[in-house]
Amino acid sequence: MTDLDHTHDPALRSWVASANSADTDFPIQNLPLGMARAAGSTGAFRPVTAIGDQVLDLIAAAELGALSDALGAVLRTCEGHGLNPLMAIGPDLRRQLRHELVAALRDEAGPKQANALAPALKPMADVEMTLPCRIGDYTDFYAGIHHATTVGKLFRPDNPLLPNYKWVPIGYHGRVSSIGVSGQTFRRPLGQTKAPDAEAPGFGPVKRLDYELEVGALVATGNEPGRPVSIDEAEQHLFGLVLLNDWSARDLQAWEYQPLGPFLSKSFATTISPWVITMEALAPFRRAFTRPDGDPQPLPYLDGAANRERGAIGIRLEVHLQTRAMRDAGQAPARLTASDFSQAYWTVAQMLTHHASNGCNLQTGDLFGSGTMSGPTADQGGSLLELTQGGKQAITLPGGEQRLFLQDGDSVALVGRCEAPGRRAIGFGPCVGTVMPAVA
Amino acid sequence: MTDLDHTHDPALRSWVASANSADTDFPIQNLPLGMARAAGSTGAFRPVTAIGDQVLDLIAAAELGALSDALGAVLRTCEGHGLNPLMAIGPDLRRQLRHELVAALRDEAGPKQANALAPALKPMADVEMTLPCRIGDYTDFYAGIHHATTVGKLFRPDNPLLPNYKWVPIGYHGRVSSIGVSGQTFRRPLGQTKAPDAEAPGFGPVKRLDYELEVGALVATGNEPGRPVSIDEAEQHLFGLVLLNDWSARDLQAWEYQPLGPFLSKSFATTISPWVITMEALAPFRRAFTRPDGDPQPLPYLDGAANRERGAIGIRLEVHLQTRAMRDAGQAPARLTASDFSQAYWTVAQMLTHHASNGCNLQTGDLFGSGTMSGPTADQGGSLLELTQGGKQAITLPGGEQRLFLQDGDSVALVGRCEAPGRRAIGFGPCVGTVMPAVA
Repeated sequence: MTDLDHTHDPALRSWVASANSADTDFPIQNLPLGMARAAGSTGAFRPVTAIGDQVLDLIAAAELGALSDALGAVLRTCEGHGLNPLMAIGPDLRRQLRHELVAALRDEAGPKQANALAPALKPMADVEMTLPCRIGDYTDFYAGIHHATTVGKLFRPDNPLLPNYKWVPIGYHGRVSSIGVSGQTFRRPLGQTKAPDAEAPGFGPVKRLDYELEVGALVATGNEPGRPVSIDEAEQHLFGLVLLNDWSARDLQAWEYQPLGPFLSKSFATTISPWVITMEALAPFRRAFTRPDGDPQPLPYLDGAANRERGAIGIRLEVHLQTRAMRDAGQAPARLTASDFSQAYWTVAQMLTHHASNGCNLQTGDLFGSGTMSGPTADQGGSLLELTQGGKQAITLPGGEQRLFLQDGDSVALVGRCEAPGRRAIGFGPCVGTVMPAVA
Repeated sequence: MTDLDHTHDPALRSWVASANSADTDFPIQNLPLGMARAAGSTGAFRPVTAIGDQVLDLIAAAELGALSDALGAVLRTCEGHGLNPLMAIGPDLRRQLRHELVAALRDEAGPKQANALAPALKPMADVEMTLPCRIGDYTDFYAGIHHATTVGKLFRPDNPLLPNYKWVPIGYHGRVSSIGVSGQTFRRPLGQTKAPDAEAPGFGPVKRLDYELEVGALVATGNEPGRPVSIDEAEQHLFGLVLLNDWSARDLQAWEYQPLGPFLSKSFATTISPWVITMEALAPFRRAFTRPDGDPQPLPYLDGAANRERGAIGIRLEVHLQTRAMRDAGQAPARLTASDFSQAYWTVAQMLTHHASNGCNLQTGDLFGSGTMSGPTADQGGSLLELTQGGKQAITLPGGEQRLFLQDGDSVALVGRCEAPGRRAIGFGPCVGTVMPAVA
């Protein structure tokens, strides 16, 4: 479990002025990690951090003397590859990187550092980003109990929350190849669907296209095959979090998902935010993990003191929708929902420990999705399926348009922001994806 | 669809004498591809083919002039990486490799080639093999209708074969990190299970450990996101087949699998055979793909003339079990079952087309599992779950031992062999895995 130190001091300011504005996602207390290159370039993606509205090239920063040689050597191996080598260096060196970045970027370091590091800084608007790392395996959990209950009611009215839900961190393997970063566009999938009253299924563009509001967790270091990870060690294996949109075709899902789970209803696209918010940056927003009265306590292998005391993470989560008409009219995206990641029924540490409990070898760069993070009230659904009561009750957008499910041209933006009393707020940056028309 | 040519001539013989024995898996008509290095070495794995009881180093063969420069260049990029670059070169160059190998290894080429290629040949017993390629995503299908029916009865007595089964090639994403090649050992998994009459689940070593007899298919070339692959084009995207053992913990599976499908019950280990039998080598064993009378015909997107005429592939499949006691007594493995891949309810072309139908981008090196290939009769179950009627009726092994499920020390070997009248038989080589005791 990461402790708080001076890098979390809310009074810290940066000589990069935009990092000190109250509404930036990227104050000096955040320092997320990602892979970027000059927009429109064909060069290799390089490891970067964000500071205000600027991007700092970490290899260049090391060459300019702002980072130690040991970190510089690791960062160079990330070029053209992904953050994996950096993710694998372990928590001590990761903390060292954070400390060195704070030392280089803090107010007290400028203008000397401002001059020295100028060649390594670029406006964020001038770079493009890619996946933060090579993802070996992607596992999607189901830790949103409000989502599981509401959706369970739609698929199984008599049996909304299955008997295993409060005991097992339910998860399933997801598709890696179609994971993209913010800015991803994808064609409306085609697929096989069957109306309840139809004799036979048909094939064509899906009609019930949806998003799912999730948080993603990236694995820093894995485990040897056959060697589980104890709940007390689990946090050491985590690198950081991203936002994750688990796009879903509900009509495909309903027809295909039994008995082996979702497949083509999810595998066409998954969008994550390109900036990894490190576990170190999230330290001030940790909260006690508790179970509602009357719910079973986790089995011992999923129950540890640190997990109980600080296993949860407070992240305010939102979904915003912008239709093509809204975009054309210059109208801002409309907020559809807000919830909080601290309400997850299982912590990321529990997900990791459960995942490795059977001896499955996790690897650096593995991605976990949290499952849809809906809130407890009807207007806090993390998907349209929930907000429209299974596609029955349309929602009305500010411009007057209505939606049961997503239409071509719709853009969905996830927002994540951590706030706590006496703490500098940090954010996750953009996680936007757009639906394109089905292939002809 | 690959046509037959002189490389399939059953009269072809090799100057490698062991390739001409009737019972070898690797006559000159096979020429499977894999990645090998000297046993016990720490060097890079290199692309190889098998001929009789010998392994031919393909980079060395190219350097010795037996393969064209173009193929040599591709093969060199496979070293230390996997067959992926070779898999991606397309069917014409793949066929060229086969033709050049036949020219170099056929009887008529020796003893000149026997002398020239001697430095590139090694006894198979002196090499170790690894995964044939980097597997990006692994999808396990469910095309064994006899398995689906028998297992469905155990899990859902009233509803064995779900309404979607005969319409949708059911599949789900599997775990890539724990895929190993023949020789894989793995610890008995720990996990959360719940007896039907227990109030709460418990945690410990699983009791109902099982194997599943499957065929794996490797993708040669993928598709762009959003661009489906027609059924008529699907064969061009396939590289070859392997055997696949989808190890399964039935007690984990029963408790965890709803509603999102199998997860930890499968993710601890999957064993494949290291030799890829190319689609070219399988050409003589193609058969008509037909549906039983009264079953629905596939929807048009899964139905094509070539698929109907030659979509099925005849592979005799067997499972052999050797317990520790049998091994200690020098007793041969006992055959538990035999079935045939031609009975798969969906062809590999249909799996590929269905997988890409929603726009999901397949990639070179993706692996599909076929699902458990049981035969129609009770003694043809492709898993112990089936052979023991859900763990109720023990099977007795030749030495007198009984099994409901696998015990520590048990080795399971899958066997695959293609035979057809007037054709030289070819085989898949070994696919063995062994259960080790659970971690303390």
